[in-house]
Amino acid sequence: MRLFNKVAIVGTGLIGGSIALAIKKKRLAGEVIGVSRHKKSLLLAKKKGAIDRGSQEIDIIKGADLLILATPPSTIIDLAPKISQIIGKGCIVTDVASTKEELVSSLSKIFPNYVGSHPLAGSEKRGIINADPEIFKNSLCILTPIKNTTEKAFKKVNLLWRQLGAKTVLLSPKSHDKILSFTSHLPHSIAFSLINSMPLSYLKFASTGLKDTTRIASSDSELWTDIFLSNQKNMLKTIGLFQDALSRIKSAIQKKDKKQLTLMLKKAKNKRDRLGDYCH
Amino acid sequence: MRLFNKVAIVGTGLIGGSIALAIKKKRLAGEVIGVSRHKKSLLLAKKKGAIDRGSQEIDIIKGADLLILATPPSTIIDLAPKISQIIGKGCIVTDVASTKEELVSSLSKIFPNYVGSHPLAGSEKRGIINADPEIFKNSLCILTPIKNTTEKAFKKVNLLWRQLGAKTVLLSPKSHDKILSFTSHLPHSIAFSLINSMPLSYLKFASTGLKDTTRIASSDSELWTDIFLSNQKNMLKTIGLFQDALSRIKSAIQKKDKKQLTLMLKKAKNKRDRLGDYCH
Repeated sequence: MRLFNKVAIVGTGLIGGSIALAIKKKRLAGEVIGVSRHKKSLLLAKKKGAIDRGSQEIDIIKGADLLILATPPSTIIDLAPKISQIIGKGCIVTDVASTKEELVSSLSKIFPNYVGSHPLAGSEKRGIINADPEIFKNSLCILTPIKNTTEKAFKKVNLLWRQLGAKTVLLSPKSHDKILSFTSHLPHSIAFSLINSMPLSYLKFASTGLKDTTRIASSDSELWTDIFLSNQKNMLKTIGLFQDALSRIKSAIQKKDKKQLTLMLKKAKNKRDRLGDYCH
Repeated sequence: MRLFNKVAIVGTGLIGGSIALAIKKKRLAGEVIGVSRHKKSLLLAKKKGAIDRGSQEIDIIKGADLLILATPPSTIIDLAPKISQIIGKGCIVTDVASTKEELVSSLSKIFPNYVGSHPLAGSEKRGIINADPEIFKNSLCILTPIKNTTEKAFKKVNLLWRQLGAKTVLLSPKSHDKILSFTSHLPHSIAFSLINSMPLSYLKFASTGLKDTTRIASSDSELWTDIFLSNQKNMLKTIGLFQDALSRIKSAIQKKDKKQLTLMLKKAKNKRDRLGDYCH
């Protein structure tokens, strides 16, 4: 089913590349255009059949009826004014950034047909080399329409994600950033801190527990710096709540308070056991 | 290859049950005896072919030439004096507990032929129902012999673990507890705290990152209370070091210090990427 004539994807990395591959595979667009700072990324995207044409020059997006911004948040903010002078006013625009409040506020003023997206389908891997058209299958994609979002933008972007295999759910940008600061950004900040606090020579004794708790510490450093800063207020709050929870466990260990410690660990186990129910 | 005539395993849970299954599968013993507080566990162990006979009464271990203590640390300490009156002085004794300093000090005084073991092969699952003779294959098993450990005990227990497929490595009980407080106990305390700080209603937005970082929070609450308290001093230190590392990230977010934040995240990524090299 062809949904678009010309889809332009700015940022042909893991997510942008995976969307491109899935659109091509499902024949959802007449052509898919890629833009990247990296020539190698474009060459590989072309070779993998993710894009029909690619360029390091942004002008190639001219005439697109869908534009997907798939770079880190700060790059999106930087590029948006220039992009708005190239694409037509009817062009539907979305992004795939992990924070929404700042971006939606800015992009909805610049693009008349914009709606924010956040597919919960990344991984610690990066680059077109790891792109996979199947990563959105059974994943959750959060859409963040606001009062002035056009029905046309919302309907088409919603349909796109469903065609890529995702379940879509709506949240306000504010709720999105609050929730994601807990479910995604906090675990990342903890994984980075955990591995940073570990003596290098001890790594050879790592068991699966350490490997799993720190897997996401291999995530892209610049992208996550961007995400943390773009969700600053929520991050400070959620890190604070986690610090309190850890302090309570530390204090029970200090006091050798077996009863209280068992209670906290049981509460954690019961909650974590419920996570198995949510499979995206 | 038969290494023992009668092996007695006290605690037929995940680890004890897996050892029993592996010993039976490899025909390393004439017979395997199980002791558990839970009748159900013994019945299932018998049904799975992990043990030849089982009992809730400890007297059944009489005449064993290898005794494996596979209960939580505090239960081992409680049971040891009584057990020493039942088994012969020549019986080789080992345990599989996650902390060693307190246990080795206590058990080496009680049993003439004792050496401590810690197979790094558990999981968040528990019970004989999840036991698997293959979990030790390519895993690491830490042995903690001390000055008065007999050669007989060390050689036989070392050989047993190798026969079960594990690589063995030697550490002093003190080094063991220090290293494991970083590589295993700290990640557990963090996983428990992370899930405890999460609003229940947000769990439906969990992505693979949250699931992986909190998987071990499903671990047995009583066992982990025991482990934390039995490694109290190290735990307080390592939690403190982690708290410092997280505070540094929080502070960089607060100051919007992009450069410093990227540096810390890159350091974490580089270290975590090296973990892939250590596959047990």
